[in-house]
Amino acid sequence: VEIIDQTRLPHEFVTLRLENMRDAEFAIRSMQVRGAPLIGVTAAYGVALSMRHHASDAALKATCDMLVKARPTAVNLRWAVERMRALLSPLPVNERADAAWHEASNIAEQDVQINESIGRHGLEIIRAIHQNKNSTVNILTHCNAGWLATVDWGTALAPIYAAFEAGIPLHVWVDETRPRNQGASLTAWELAQHGVPHTVIVDNAGGHLMQHGLVDMVIVGCDRVTATGDVCNKIGTYLKALAAFDNGVPFYVAMPTPTLDWTLQDGVLEIPIEERAEEEVTHISGLCDDGQIRRVQLTPKGSPAANYGFDVTPARLVDGLITERGLVAANADAIRVGLG
Amino acid sequence: VEIIDQTRLPHEFVTLRLENMRDAEFAIRSMQVRGAPLIGVTAAYGVALSMRHHASDAALKATCDMLVKARPTAVNLRWAVERMRALLSPLPVNERADAAWHEASNIAEQDVQINESIGRHGLEIIRAIHQNKNSTVNILTHCNAGWLATVDWGTALAPIYAAFEAGIPLHVWVDETRPRNQGASLTAWELAQHGVPHTVIVDNAGGHLMQHGLVDMVIVGCDRVTATGDVCNKIGTYLKALAAFDNGVPFYVAMPTPTLDWTLQDGVLEIPIEERAEEEVTHISGLCDDGQIRRVQLTPKGSPAANYGFDVTPARLVDGLITERGLVAANADAIRVGLG
Repeated sequence: VEIIDQTRLPHEFVTLRLENMRDAEFAIRSMQVRGAPLIGVTAAYGVALSMRHHASDAALKATCDMLVKARPTAVNLRWAVERMRALLSPLPVNERADAAWHEASNIAEQDVQINESIGRHGLEIIRAIHQNKNSTVNILTHCNAGWLATVDWGTALAPIYAAFEAGIPLHVWVDETRPRNQGASLTAWELAQHGVPHTVIVDNAGGHLMQHGLVDMVIVGCDRVTATGDVCNKIGTYLKALAAFDNGVPFYVAMPTPTLDWTLQDGVLEIPIEERAEEEVTHISGLCDDGQIRRVQLTPKGSPAANYGFDVTPARLVDGLITERGLVAANADAIRVGLG
Repeated sequence: VEIIDQTRLPHEFVTLRLENMRDAEFAIRSMQVRGAPLIGVTAAYGVALSMRHHASDAALKATCDMLVKARPTAVNLRWAVERMRALLSPLPVNERADAAWHEASNIAEQDVQINESIGRHGLEIIRAIHQNKNSTVNILTHCNAGWLATVDWGTALAPIYAAFEAGIPLHVWVDETRPRNQGASLTAWELAQHGVPHTVIVDNAGGHLMQHGLVDMVIVGCDRVTATGDVCNKIGTYLKALAAFDNGVPFYVAMPTPTLDWTLQDGVLEIPIEERAEEEVTHISGLCDDGQIRRVQLTPKGSPAANYGFDVTPARLVDGLITERGLVAANADAIRVGLG
């Protein structure tokens, strides 16, 4: 199983080979792979790698339990691992390795199909805005929900790629997305590779842009969505949703249905929010003039930092969920009828 | 005139001597000094330094015109320069140097008095929250409006220092404030020097903290306030005001009256927003493990960036202006009656 080491982008493109389940677990935990859909697929392959070596009930349980704990917030991880567990548990031990490999590749293939569909449905929204505006469509996105975050296409970026390929003039405002800067380092890199016009901004800038009519729509991905339409996504998403609402800018969430958590009603109260190391806030890595990548400290010694990875955007601020099955309103009834 | 070079903090404490008006203008433009009140005082001393060498009408006009253009958004710069011009213009040329020096020190002394008063009035607000809550008061602030941004005490931090000295248990959430990181590098440094408990957070985190009851009040400074109470402050302030409003967290602005611009009615439409170099977004400086301060690039080569320095928080989101003359509601009537 080959992955792109996303901690090295945008300055270095390095691929890694996952040899066993521990490699997969480390890749997820250390964010060599990140993005809810890709975490799910990587975990499925982690189970498959494990089954090659030991396929006993005990090994299956240990593998699944370990992988599911690698990161707490994205529900796709749990979804993929439990799908593997449910498939493999009833099978004879000697059939598990092949079945696991096959199922992991099914999940990967399904992810590509889902994202293509999200791209197609999202394209129609962008097309409608363009027909109404008749000039360049400005889209703001937060974090990275592109092909780096999935097996291919991406979720939030799938409609953008589809619209770009359809010839709709567009420009993307890329939130840098502190602390890990997935926007500045991954989304900007992806868009540059594809030639999509874009501008990197600090996370503080979006409200000002919206006040001045410089944003026509917001599209973000998601890590977990409740049955009531509350959206958990990268920290800071909620602030952009508030600004979009305050300025009448439509706010869309690209949501593969495996990201829906039917068991939850209240996102703010119920979704566990990952807290990560404070060094992600106090230090940052980048490229020096001499070509070396170095880590620099931003804060004074002795000032502590807190690092919450995600926040929850209440459903009332979300204009729609762009799913592989079409656009669904962010409320319990619409979700039950449209996706149940 | 001695200044602290704020571009070197928090890793180096370096003072600089301003010898002439050009030094003062460069210090303001390059943000060696920043913060609306300190910019005003530095400009006043810039005029005084200029008058020592040439005190003609032409020199006075050239000096004032140049200084006022060093940065566009903070109105204190214009206020201080126009105050100097109005005082000096009618005077005989040979009296201008002494009068200018005297007036600059008046402005500096007045700034200290203003901030002490803001601290006293703001302390009462913090005290009331503490009496109601009976445990540690959590205060969120954005950018740096401490003693580094003024001659002494600060504006937004003056109430925090006053409350800390009064023994009220408090803790400050410090927004890092990208792109220039005045929070992570200046506010955190100031608070650490004084022993005030604080935690640095990314600018994305405030909404999540407020949703979870972890913020009791927000206090920020300001660069220009309209006669109707719209508040221009560091980019990102508006997003925090939206989150505070959405969560019922009181949002206060510490405002010295020289920051009030009586000529403006609509902050979003009328206040000029400085756009600065894109390198402030694409690159950042910090301390390497080897003790060297280095600048690193965060974005891929070829991805452009935009850099708006300020945004405007509409008056409807502001719970009150803490001025040297007391707490004033953020609306045209209250401002006219309270401060006119």
